[in-house]
Amino acid sequence: MKPKNIRDALPDTLEIETFEDILRVPGVRIERIVSKGQASPEQGWYDQDEHEWVMVVAGKAAIEFADGSHCTMSAGDYLNIPARCRHRVSWTDPGDVTIWLAVFYT
Amino acid sequence: MKPKNIRDALPDTLEIETFEDILRVPGVRIERIVSKGQASPEQGWYDQDEHEWVMVVAGKAAIEFADGSHCTMSAGDYLNIPARCRHRVSWTDPGDVTIWLAVFYT
Repeated sequence: MKPKNIRDALPDTLEIETFEDILRVPGVRIERIVSKGQASPEQGWYDQDEHEWVMVVAGKAAIEFADGSHCTMSAGDYLNIPARCRHRVSWTDPGDVTIWLAVFYT
Repeated sequence: MKPKNIRDALPDTLEIETFEDILRVPGVRIERIVSKGQASPEQGWYDQDEHEWVMVVAGKAAIEFADGSHCTMSAGDYLNIPARCRHRVSWTDPGDVTIWLAVFYT
């Protein structure tokens, strides 16, 4: 069994945010998200059926919640975002790659 | 909503390996494991009911499998270990803290 690395095979272009499944089984999905300077559109709120546990592996980002609160996240920071908790990524570092690890579960 | 950090509140003593739940819901458990130089006992094979997706967040470690194969892991390396795949941690770096993030799922 040979490990893969979360920093491997970064997308050729970082002009768009990329979402890749690392693992997908019924009820659980582990995803790598790679951002560089992107943010959700002003009206692009996530309103998810699944719960999401998310950690920033590298980089920096900010998340906004529908109640107007914000939080900033850097390497090692994690959050558990319940299903239906509306949120958007309001900022990611334009100067460096941000790698997110997200565990979606039902 | 305020993030926590995977490197926060490391155990006072690193003489024993520590296992802490970050999230526990039916069917999914996210755990932080902190090691420093520990290894599973020679006869201490994990033979788990759950599948385990595991990533080394910081540090270095080696895993041995029942078929005699080994792998080494460092920051960002991840593996998916199916249920019943017998394995043991054969080494963790004695000179630095190893932080593992493990997602157990059924």
